[in-house]
Amino acid sequence: MFQVLKTEGRARRGVFACAHGTVQTPVFMNVGTQGAIKGAVSALDLKEIGCQVELSNTYHLHLRPGDQVVRQMGGLHKFMGWDGPILTDSGGFQVFSLSGLRKIKEEGVTFASHIDGRRIFMGPEESMRIQSNLGSDIAMAFDECVENPAAYEYAKASCERTLRWLERCVAEHNRLNALPDTVNPDQMLFGINQGATFPDLRVWHMKEIAGLGCDGYAIGGLAVGEPTQVMYDIIDAVEPHMPADKPRYLMGVGTPSNIIEGVARGVDFFDCVMPARNARHAKLFTWSGSMNIRNEKYKLDERPIDPSCGCPTCRHFSRAYLRHLFVAEEMLAMRLAVLHNLYFYNELARRIREALDTGAFAAFRAEYTQRLAERL
Amino acid sequence: MFQVLKTEGRARRGVFACAHGTVQTPVFMNVGTQGAIKGAVSALDLKEIGCQVELSNTYHLHLRPGDQVVRQMGGLHKFMGWDGPILTDSGGFQVFSLSGLRKIKEEGVTFASHIDGRRIFMGPEESMRIQSNLGSDIAMAFDECVENPAAYEYAKASCERTLRWLERCVAEHNRLNALPDTVNPDQMLFGINQGATFPDLRVWHMKEIAGLGCDGYAIGGLAVGEPTQVMYDIIDAVEPHMPADKPRYLMGVGTPSNIIEGVARGVDFFDCVMPARNARHAKLFTWSGSMNIRNEKYKLDERPIDPSCGCPTCRHFSRAYLRHLFVAEEMLAMRLAVLHNLYFYNELARRIREALDTGAFAAFRAEYTQRLAERL
Repeated sequence: MFQVLKTEGRARRGVFACAHGTVQTPVFMNVGTQGAIKGAVSALDLKEIGCQVELSNTYHLHLRPGDQVVRQMGGLHKFMGWDGPILTDSGGFQVFSLSGLRKIKEEGVTFASHIDGRRIFMGPEESMRIQSNLGSDIAMAFDECVENPAAYEYAKASCERTLRWLERCVAEHNRLNALPDTVNPDQMLFGINQGATFPDLRVWHMKEIAGLGCDGYAIGGLAVGEPTQVMYDIIDAVEPHMPADKPRYLMGVGTPSNIIEGVARGVDFFDCVMPARNARHAKLFTWSGSMNIRNEKYKLDERPIDPSCGCPTCRHFSRAYLRHLFVAEEMLAMRLAVLHNLYFYNELARRIREALDTGAFAAFRAEYTQRLAERL
Repeated sequence: MFQVLKTEGRARRGVFACAHGTVQTPVFMNVGTQGAIKGAVSALDLKEIGCQVELSNTYHLHLRPGDQVVRQMGGLHKFMGWDGPILTDSGGFQVFSLSGLRKIKEEGVTFASHIDGRRIFMGPEESMRIQSNLGSDIAMAFDECVENPAAYEYAKASCERTLRWLERCVAEHNRLNALPDTVNPDQMLFGINQGATFPDLRVWHMKEIAGLGCDGYAIGGLAVGEPTQVMYDIIDAVEPHMPADKPRYLMGVGTPSNIIEGVARGVDFFDCVMPARNARHAKLFTWSGSMNIRNEKYKLDERPIDPSCGCPTCRHFSRAYLRHLFVAEEMLAMRLAVLHNLYFYNELARRIREALDTGAFAAFRAEYTQRLAERL
């Protein structure tokens, strides 16, 4: 289902066929936590801003509206009105980062809902069942994302458990896909590499999970506070052990520069809340650096955010208008800023693909990493 | 500039030519207080939901971003990206309803900004200058909207002052339109009838202002707490004294039923924050009554809000999805609900026009007033 069309160094230009369409890689996935993109952005808008894959959160949708509701409504695609590929995370990250009172056992994790404190149990089988109900194109394995920094012994034990959990995920995922009334019988499963910042654990774990026949492999537990160079070193250590014929996904990463460096190290899939979160704080990405649109200096600026940008915001509205909307606390400010920043990230991935297509990725990396590193 | 195409009883079907396009009347104007519609709705969306006239607030735009900023950006049309007709109110209503510490003199009103408490003076000339800077198609006269209930003597004195203010508005408006660098030299001015709930004051005032040659006349100071029948009675009393060859605007009104009754009494223009405000509270208008979309009973409802509605929300999303968005407090809930409710109001005006075109307004009024009165 995954085909590498071209390589340049370790960077890969590929295509990945899902139940709801073919994804051109490298790709940046747009995060719609609760089946909606923050900032009043709908599935209709995603088409306009170049989104290929929408990413929704299993934990959030399990709590609200409930995955059984989504299933009864025909699955997440129909529910949210998006007919392109959807990836759902496993819920693991939110269980460990959002909820209070969590308790980890071999079976899984008991945690308290961040909404009403209700006690909920989630293990590998539960995560697979929820994601099966959601009917996403790509399900993610249930894993433990250990805190940074982690003690070696804890990270090792957690890593071993995450491996056992993946084996259970694979079994349950296969069982669910084969059921006669499953929402998406072609749902795929990606395994997740863990091991904190310890290269030996990372490599050991990657070698173990590579043999489990997942449809793709992710590197998880990075971009959680470790220095950027540590993140790059981990990717460098793990990547040679990731199956070359499967897509690779660097979870929750990152800045434009991080994405270019990830591609250079052989990564195909990315996602990050940064473009939408920054947008909500008036921080906008442009091809000549970032800007805070609330700044007084934009008060009378008739230009679009980025004159070279083709997003709906830049095609119709000025910096002065957007600044006014932020200062006046109009909800429209969020929407126009999020549309711009997501478009920027999707366009970044498109330009990376274009560079790979023409054998110009090294030059692209040199130029943009330099430029973005200076300003972003 | 205004032409009555057809009448049915006192109801009028007309066209009104503005600098930025021709308005089919009766018309419902969509409120964009600060140059943006509440609920993350932009000028681009207004075209999709059948909006003919956008209404912005002089008071708000004077405070933020400042009318001088809007002027320097080429006027409100260019600033907010809307190339259709715009009506600006005079600022009077907000001066009297939003700001603290106001002091009325013959010259005008000194008041405290609701944002930072700054003392601001606004009189007829200031209101005209601000609206001239905004460059709207229709400016509204600066008036005093007295509280309800009002004492007769106060209402009479206020009414007389509002008449003197209108004379000053007309003079200043003509002077501004003739300046070589005015934003919109074809800006029109509507006078506003006042007189609280006293028919004799209303009629006296209307007769006085009718002779001042305004481009249209509004009935102000209604829908501020008086019984609905009192409002209808005032319209009945005033309407015979309004120039038949000028458009009539019932300010800040109202429910769908109020609008139909207004049309039946010879009114051409309407505006109201109700559709957007109700939308933000999950209360949606449909052709079979209103609904609160947060209600549990919509949890698994696959139907659109209103199966007979052609708005972007109803064409793409289910009740169940919209309910989820409200319960999960997603900003997208506001946007989709506001788009629906504004579309409903614009469609209501369109159906009224259609009924007038075919001589079927009496039947339309009988059917819908009955149906809406029962449910809304």
